[in-house]
Parts: sequence; C-alpha cells; structure tokens
Amino acid sequence: MAGAAAGTAHLCTRCPSLLMSSSMSTLRYAARRLALAPVASLASSSSQSRGGISRVRLMGVLASTRPSLGGIRTTMEPCARRELSSSVRAKVIESGSAVVEESAEVEPVPSSSVPEFKKRLRIAEIKGGEDGGLRLVGQTMTVRGWVRTCRLQKTFTFIEVNDGSAVSNIQAVVGSDVEGYDKIEAGLVNTGASVAIEGVLVESQGSKQKVELKATKLTLVGGTDPASFPIQKKKLSREYLRSVAHLRPRTNTFGAVARVRTALAFATHQFFREHGFVWVASPIITASDCEGAGEQFCVTTLIPSSHEDPKTPLSKVPTTKDGLIDWSQDFFGKPAFLTVSGQLNGETYATALCDVYTFGPTFRAENSNTTRHLAEFWMIEPELAFADLKDDMACATAYLQYVVKYVLENCKEDMEFFDKWVEKDIVTRLTNVVEKPFVHVTYTEAVELLQKAKKKFEFPVKWGADLQSEHERYLTEVAFSGNPVIVTDYPKVLICQTI
Amino acid sequence: MAGAAAGTAHLCTRCPSLLMSSSMSTLRYAARRLALAPVASLASSSSQSRGGISRVRLMGVLASTRPSLGGIRTTMEPCARRELSSSVRAKVIESGSAVVEESAEVEPVPSSSVPEFKKRLRIAEIKGGEDGGLRLVGQTMTVRGWVRTCRLQKTFTFIEVNDGSAVSNIQAVVGSDVEGYDKIEAGLVNTGASVAIEGVLVESQGSKQKVELKATKLTLVGGTDPASFPIQKKKLSREYLRSVAHLRPRTNTFGAVARVRTALAFATHQFFREHGFVWVASPIITASDCEGAGEQFCVTTLIPSSHEDPKTPLSKVPTTKDGLIDWSQDFFGKPAFLTVSGQLNGETYATALCDVYTFGPTFRAENSNTTRHLAEFWMIEPELAFADLKDDMACATAYLQYVVKYVLENCKEDMEFFDKWVEKDIVTRLTNVVEKPFVHVTYTEAVELLQKAKKKFEFPVKWGADLQSEHERYLTEVAFSGNPVIVTDYPKVLICQTI
Repeated sequence: MAGAAAGTAHLCTRCPSLLMSSSMSTLRYAARRLALAPVASLASSSSQSRGGISRVRLMGVLASTRPSLGGIRTTMEPCARRELSSSVRAKVIESGSAVVEESAEVEPVPSSSVPEFKKRLRIAEIKGGEDGGLRLVGQTMTVRGWVRTCRLQKTFTFIEVNDGSAVSNIQAVVGSDVEGYDKIEAGLVNTGASVAIEGVLVESQGSKQKVELKATKLTLVGGTDPASFPIQKKKLSREYLRSVAHLRPRTNTFGAVARVRTALAFATHQFFREHGFVWVASPIITASDCEGAGEQFCVTTLIPSSHEDPKTPLSKVPTTKDGLIDWSQDFFGKPAFLTVSGQLNGETYATALCDVYTFGPTFRAENSNTTRHLAEFWMIEPELAFADLKDDMACATAYLQYVVKYVLENCKEDMEFFDKWVEKDIVTRLTNVVEKPFVHVTYTEAVELLQKAKKKFEFPVKWGADLQSEHERYLTEVAFSGNPVIVTDYPKVLICQTI
Repeated sequence: MAGAAAGTAHLCTRCPSLLMSSSMSTLRYAARRLALAPVASLASSSSQSRGGISRVRLMGVLASTRPSLGGIRTTMEPCARRELSSSVRAKVIESGSAVVEESAEVEPVPSSSVPEFKKRLRIAEIKGGEDGGLRLVGQTMTVRGWVRTCRLQKTFTFIEVNDGSAVSNIQAVVGSDVEGYDKIEAGLVNTGASVAIEGVLVESQGSKQKVELKATKLTLVGGTDPASFPIQKKKLSREYLRSVAHLRPRTNTFGAVARVRTALAFATHQFFREHGFVWVASPIITASDCEGAGEQFCVTTLIPSSHEDPKTPLSKVPTTKDGLIDWSQDFFGKPAFLTVSGQLNGETYATALCDVYTFGPTFRAENSNTTRHLAEFWMIEPELAFADLKDDMACATAYLQYVVKYVLENCKEDMEFFDKWVEKDIVTRLTNVVEKPFVHVTYTEAVELLQKAKKKFEFPVKWGADLQSEHERYLTEVAFSGNPVIVTDYPKVLICQTI
C-alpha cells in the first residue's frame, strides 16, 4: 500500500484536486492464469479508511478449496477513501435480507448481512430516452459528479454537473437559501470540483434541456482552484492533454472514447459467445514467436532496475564465462518475450473446441512512430475449425456489423458527439457498414475496376502493385456506392511484402 | 507468415496429427490501445489457402477515416487451411442478400455478397435440454469433431465424437455400407482423429445416452497414429499434459476449464456493464509501480536476443561512459515494466466516469512457486466513486453471486464434471454462495467467536494474530453454517504484514 500511496501522492502533486474531489473505493479480483479448478477461493483483502485502519477479509464456503488444485482465484482488496461516510462497519440496510442461520454450537454474536448492491441513478438514465427525462419530473434524487461550469446569477446559481455516464451534463439550479450555498459564496465550487447535489427534477425553463435539478442541498466533496485546475471549459489539444493524462478522462472526448471502447469490447465478447466461441486468454509472456523475430520486447528480471534508482551497472547482469548473458539465471531460465499474437495458442484450442477467439493485449517493438503503429494494443483473433475462406469472410462481416450496430444503438450521444466534433459523417458511414451487404471481389477484378475508372489516381494502377488508400476509397465509395468491400486473391508477391 | 508457418511446423513435428486433423481458419482483429476515434478502420488482411496464395483485404466506408486521428483499428488476417473445400472465391449463398448497388460511373464487374455467418449445430445444443436431444430425432445433421473412441463390432462401428462444446460426446453408429467406411477398415479412424459425420439423429438403443447419430457418410479430415498419439482415453496426469500442452485442450478437464473460464469472463463483463461500469484497458507496459518496487518484470529492447540465437554477448547492451546501462537507448527511453496493477489508471477514470473496472493481465516477478503465486494472471479491479466500505462489500458480494450463479446455470455439465472428478461438493458449496446472505463481522467479533468455539485449533487464537485457513473454515462452515463471511477492521499490525 506504500507504493500505491506514493503513486497517489505523485498524482496529487500534479493536481491537488484529483483525489480531494472524489470519494472512491477500490476492489480487486484476480482471476489467475492457467487455472485448473473453476472455483473462486476468496483469499485476503485489505482496506484503509480515513476513520481508522480497516482490513477486510472475505471468506466463504469456497475457502475450503484444496490449495493443491490451483484454481481461478479471486482476491479482493478494497481500499476505500471515504469522505461522505465515516462508518467502517456496514449497517444492515434491508432487514429482510439479514437473516443469518445461527449455529447451535456457538452463542449468537453481532453480525450483519452485506447490503444489496444497487445501480445508481446516473445522468445517462435521467436524461436518456425519448422524453429527455420528463417522465422523472417531480422525483427527488441526488446527482454526484464533477462541475463543468458554475454560473452565478442574481437569484440563482446554475451548475452544470457531469458524472461520466454521458456527454450530457445535468443543470442544477441552486438558490441562495439552499443548504451548502455558502460553498459557492466562498468560491469553492468551480470547474472540476466534485459535488453531490440533492434536489427535485423539474421541467427546465431553458431551451437547451428538457429537465433540470432544483437543488435542495449541495455537498462539496472536493473543491478546485480555478487558477491551477488544468481542464477548463475550452478546446484542449490532445498534445496538452498528454501532459495531464490523469485528468484526460474528464474531457468529453476521452469520456466518449472510454464508453464506446467499453461497448465495443462488450459487443465483441457477446458476439462470439452467441456464436458458441470459447475465449482463450493466450499467454502474454511467451517464448514463441508467431511473426518472425526481431520485433518483440524482452521480459526479464536479469537487469536489477528499480523505480527509486534507475542507475544500473552493466556488471550486475549475470554472465557466463564466455561473456554471454546467462539466461539460465533469468526468471524463466531462458529468454522470454511479450506476445505478438495469440494465434498459436488459439490454434491448439480451436483443434479441440472448434471455434475460439483471443482478445487481449499484444505488443510490437517496432520503432515506427505512425498513427498505424502502436507498441501495445488489444487484438481479437478468432480461430474457426472446419472452416474455409468463405466462413472467414462471413465471420468478419457478421462481427463488424454486430459491433458497429451495437455501438450505434448503445452509444448514440457519444457517436453524435464524434460526428460533430471529431469525424464528420461517421454515423452515416458506420450505418452503411451495418445496413449494406459486404461486397467480395478478387484483386484482379478490383484492378480492372480501377483501370476503368474515370478518376485520376496519384499512384498508378497496375496488376501486381499494391492498392493504396485512394484506390480502396474509390472501390468502396464510388465503385460500390458505400458498400464495404473485401478483396481476395492478391498476387503472391504482395503477400510476401506485407506479412 | 513465415514465422507462423515455422511455429506450426514445430507443432506438427511434436504431433503429426494436430494440424492434419483439423481444417481451420484464423481471423485477426486488432483494437489498438490509446485509441482516440471510435471507428474501425479495416486495414489489411491476408489468406493462404491450399489451392493457391490468396490475400484478403477488407475495405469499407471506414477506410476513409483520417489516419491522423489514430483510432481503434481492426485488422483482419484470415489464414485458412482449408481441407474440406478448395474454392478460393466465395460463392453467393443467399441470392437474396446479394443485391449490390452498381455505380453509374463504371460498368458492372463480377462481385458477390459475403454469405451469412451462421452458428453451427454443436453437440452441446443437440444433447442439451431436458429431453437429451429427443426433440431433434429424425433430423439430418453433420457433426464435426475429434474421435474419443472407435469401437469396431460385428455389424456396426461405434464412434464417440467430441466437438469441444461440452464434456458429452455424441455416439455415431456407422454401418459397413456407409460412405467412408473404408477409412475405418484402413485403421485410420482412431482416438484423436478429426472427422465429419453426416447422419440422422435417432433414439439410442444404449442406456448411456438418449440419442445417437445414424451415420450416412464419414469424412476423415485427419487421421492419427494410435501408437504415437499422446491423448488416449485414460487418466493423464497434469504433469504429463504439460509436456503435450498443445493437445491439453482435447482433455475433458482443460475443455471444461476453458468453457467455465469463458463463462466467468463474460459474466464479469456483463455484471459490470449492467451496473453502469466503464471498462478501462489500463496499460500493460508501464513506468509506474502500484505495489512497491522489486517484484516487476522489466520490458526492454536493450538486450539483442532472438529465438534463433539466444547467445547474447553482454557487450552488446549499450552503456554510458560510467558503465551504467544506457536506458536512453531503450525503446521508451527509460526503464519500463509490466504492470502489477491497473489501480492508478482506474482511479483517474473513476474520478471522471464514476464507476469503472479493469480486467486484464497482471504480472508479478516473485519467485514463489506455490499454488497461490503466478507470474501472469488476469485481475479484475473495480473502482467506485462516491462509495464507502459498505458499497465495496455490497459490490463484491453482488459480483460473486452473479458470476457464480451464471456459471452454475450455464456450465451445468462442466460443473458436474468437476464435482465428480476434481472437487467433491463444489456445486453445493457454490450454491451456498449464491443463495445464502453474506455475513459481515469485525475481526474482534471473529476472534471472540473462535475463542468460544469447542473445536481445538492447530494455531492458537488470540487478538492480534492472523486468521489461518482453519479459523476461516470454522467461521464459514460452523459458526455461520455455510454463509460466506466478510471480516473487517483488522488490527493495523496485520495490515502492514500482508500488504
């Protein structure tokens, strides 16, 4: 926990508002690799709270799992930084669920059931739907989130609060008689401040939203200094945001990316599960190489480096008497690398379980600083048994249409945000992917199409040359009117170039 | 592809039956990290088939995504080893979906729509359900999978086929007049062989199953040599299976683990999504350390190692003039490590999006060879904003009950297999987790309970000492009659020991 505290302190140094402005809890569950038994053995957990040191240990009928079996383990380390509540002991919220069978052997001792875990009402739910929230008018609710803007006017203060569930904020109207108004007067409720606002949902007088929150109580969880808080309401460059990476998620763009990415990942798992695929968590650290050597990261404990002191004398690396690095003293007793592909593992599972997929991080140590190269990325690798190229194309098409449709339906506001601010017409183009049939042509047919085109290309079209972006765009946008296109049967020489 | 082929050849050397016995396709989609735009830019893909070299490139309306935006990318590299079909060009299966709008600008060229991707009928579906498959009697179907046993009898041959969708096999009854029977006579259809059997589902005469497949055609996809195929129908030790790791998935245990693990992972994503959590793919390669230094793997390109030649002269590692390792020449310009926790990243997202979770691989370079330590494991770390210890416990309880219930309901046969062969009574114990309320006691209360117990413990119970497994078992099994127990408020001294 010392390490975590140090890391946190580091973040605090960069921006004092980060941890002050939130009350947060951490749980941690570890599902260990290479598990043999499908049981969750609940090991230890710890918790550090403001009111006092508190350690939680969860044990269950599972605790009797024989250790020799290995097993998928679940460890839980809650780390609560509680500000809204100082009680360490959980109270029974619903007495109905607090029935605990008492053993005849021991006298009853104080104990309580764990309360029900309820989904909170979030801004996305309040303002979502056709009516923009009108169905909830009259209801009392508490909105918790971060202030986007705070405008003081004569009789009322208007606070725009965002809770990360949507691009949309909710507008809270705070009268000077509201409990907690003194925090506004003291100048503590600024952009970035963390607040909890209780109130009644009412029809909005403004034209920008259907509903707003008429506040009855304002709680300042953590204030910000407007002179130093880096994320103000203005357009910030991505380069600048890299320098305050811990606060990037507070921007509309990064929030929307996180939500869309979550939706894409979930839709990916759901698509493959619906089609009977088994997920294979292929090893990340590996001694095998799918793609040819020379582009992998080495994973080692031979170099005695630490965060505190990165000064590492070369002489500390163990060697053989020939002056070679002594791999036998490395963690795995031989060179180990980060995976470039889970394909080989996927294949061994596909030849036993038929249809499988990997979905995990993948690594390339290529020093190519382009928008198409990353050192670390998440990759999906389906493996189909008893399948041919036709099935491949069908699977890829169905997968793309499924996940794109899922995102268009479930991240509507985020996609509209991207359409307006990041990538014009993206919604139309993605709708084409979902609705138009995918077209399949051979490379030779594609070249014929391009040669017949009236358009002048920058790169000349000839059989045997690679297709450039301009050619691909012409095929999809002009030749096939927006239908996605799959090109097969490339000349052998081009395959050798690109693989 | 050269690398992949080499890897495959390596597997083939170890077991000639692996690739011969399957027809398989590989797709690959890469969702790159640090993505900014939520668009899938379909880059290049390739395919190598038996009939000839074939490269597939999928392009779509997405291809016009501006490269400068970065983006979540999807690359697809199908690699089909087709044995059942030699056609490279996909045919239009459903003419109804083959309507392609033609552009006015160009003359029509040959093109076809990609066929629909259909879920195949698998043994789990055939034999699943209350009636054990009787509802499908009379239907014609093709079962594809691997032979578990092949018993030649006077008039019929009985082949047990498993396709990895369940522990259960399907029994195919093959008469001597069936097309492909010559393969059986030639001694090629043995344990491990890959087959496709067409037939009619009939009521079984045997008592072990309700239905069986009356074969009309047997296709041998890949045969095995019974003298050398390592996975025969007998109990194999896990130590032995490590030596034939590429064939482990063909065993009942590893197949069941893969299916249960898939279900646990899916239920995890579904639980958090239903509760409005955002998934954070926290970086795997990192320069930060959550847990204190000294236990992380170093990720580096400073050591020029390759799979072909692991002989690495120490002198090739770049140094400064002081004899220190020159980190400025490393890939990231400074020391980098594998993550031990995504917590710090999760926290920055939780203070913007409220509730988030990480679920990804995590690494510890501790050289502890116990059943509770692994160098690489997948970990779930939820982060809750505006939450306290009570919410922590509620979340952990709800999560555990959700995923355990999901597995008990969706992996019934696998769990019964584990109950019988791996971990007696696991189903009962897990049912307790789902059905009984979780109990919450403080450490002090737990110690009181243990001191009042009539049971003699190996480790003495006293306030300030850690709780041992025997104590935890007593609390859950005796004191609370099988209810899972959460213990909080540990003495500070114990927290410092365990964190």
